[in-house]
Amino acid sequence: MSKARVILQNITSANLLMNNVDEWKSTVNNRGVVLYLSFMKGCTSEDVSKIVKQILQSKSISTGLDSKQAICELDNFDIVIVPQASIAGKLKDKNFQYYQLIDKDTGLQLYEHFVKEVHSMMTGREGNVIISGTYGNRQGLQFSSDGPYCHIFEV
Amino acid sequence: MSKARVILQNITSANLLMNNVDEWKSTVNNRGVVLYLSFMKGCTSEDVSKIVKQILQSKSISTGLDSKQAICELDNFDIVIVPQASIAGKLKDKNFQYYQLIDKDTGLQLYEHFVKEVHSMMTGREGNVIISGTYGNRQGLQFSSDGPYCHIFEV
Repeated sequence: MSKARVILQNITSANLLMNNVDEWKSTVNNRGVVLYLSFMKGCTSEDVSKIVKQILQSKSISTGLDSKQAICELDNFDIVIVPQASIAGKLKDKNFQYYQLIDKDTGLQLYEHFVKEVHSMMTGREGNVIISGTYGNRQGLQFSSDGPYCHIFEV
Repeated sequence: MSKARVILQNITSANLLMNNVDEWKSTVNNRGVVLYLSFMKGCTSEDVSKIVKQILQSKSISTGLDSKQAICELDNFDIVIVPQASIAGKLKDKNFQYYQLIDKDTGLQLYEHFVKEVHSMMTGREGNVIISGTYGNRQGLQFSSDGPYCHIFEV
């Protein structure tokens, strides 16, 4: 059983809706990622710390022809974090079921922990912009991508 | 073992780069989905037909407060199909490995079959725009979404 599902998507720019209505936050660096995430039942704070490390330390960002780097090694890089319960769904017949999705209160705590850990791991790097969506809000999103070069982490 | 991975993402609009350079195709209906897809070793044309049915017949589109509909029941709906080998990757230590990804020639055939089946299943519906990326090309993509309300199909 996985503890979390994360989709990582390379972007050149993104705007995320912050307040359900009209407040958008924008990236600035012309390169970055959007991370959609959802947590499964049984996931703990400790798991979240490991998951953040796994994502930010994996060689997932193309920086040259054959060269790949980890997010935590990059300056002037944008990270947009989007809570996204729907990716926890499993198709059964014609409907998505969410038996494995964590309850909302625990999910909120883990989400806040995830965001905090991302900030902490990127401390010391320069010019990075980290934008995190509001848990439970509508996640209005616009993005542009060269790729989109997308990865799924089932961790 | 799954035969394919598909990410379905709700959108209000999208532009997809068709020729690696400057030719973009745009959606028109103000609602639709982007489908990222990759095929795994062992996937056949027959599997692809089943997968298309599964995706287009699943109740994955919110059309009201608690109401969900299948794509194949919708008029004036946009479908953007994006070949996306990178989602077949599996994280091992710090690198993504692609042992399960299908070879390029078979992947191209299955991709073309997938696109054809989507067109065929949407025949008779009105006002739908179907845009499919060119296999092997850079998939430049821009999109806007209210959600983004995203699903993973592991089929």
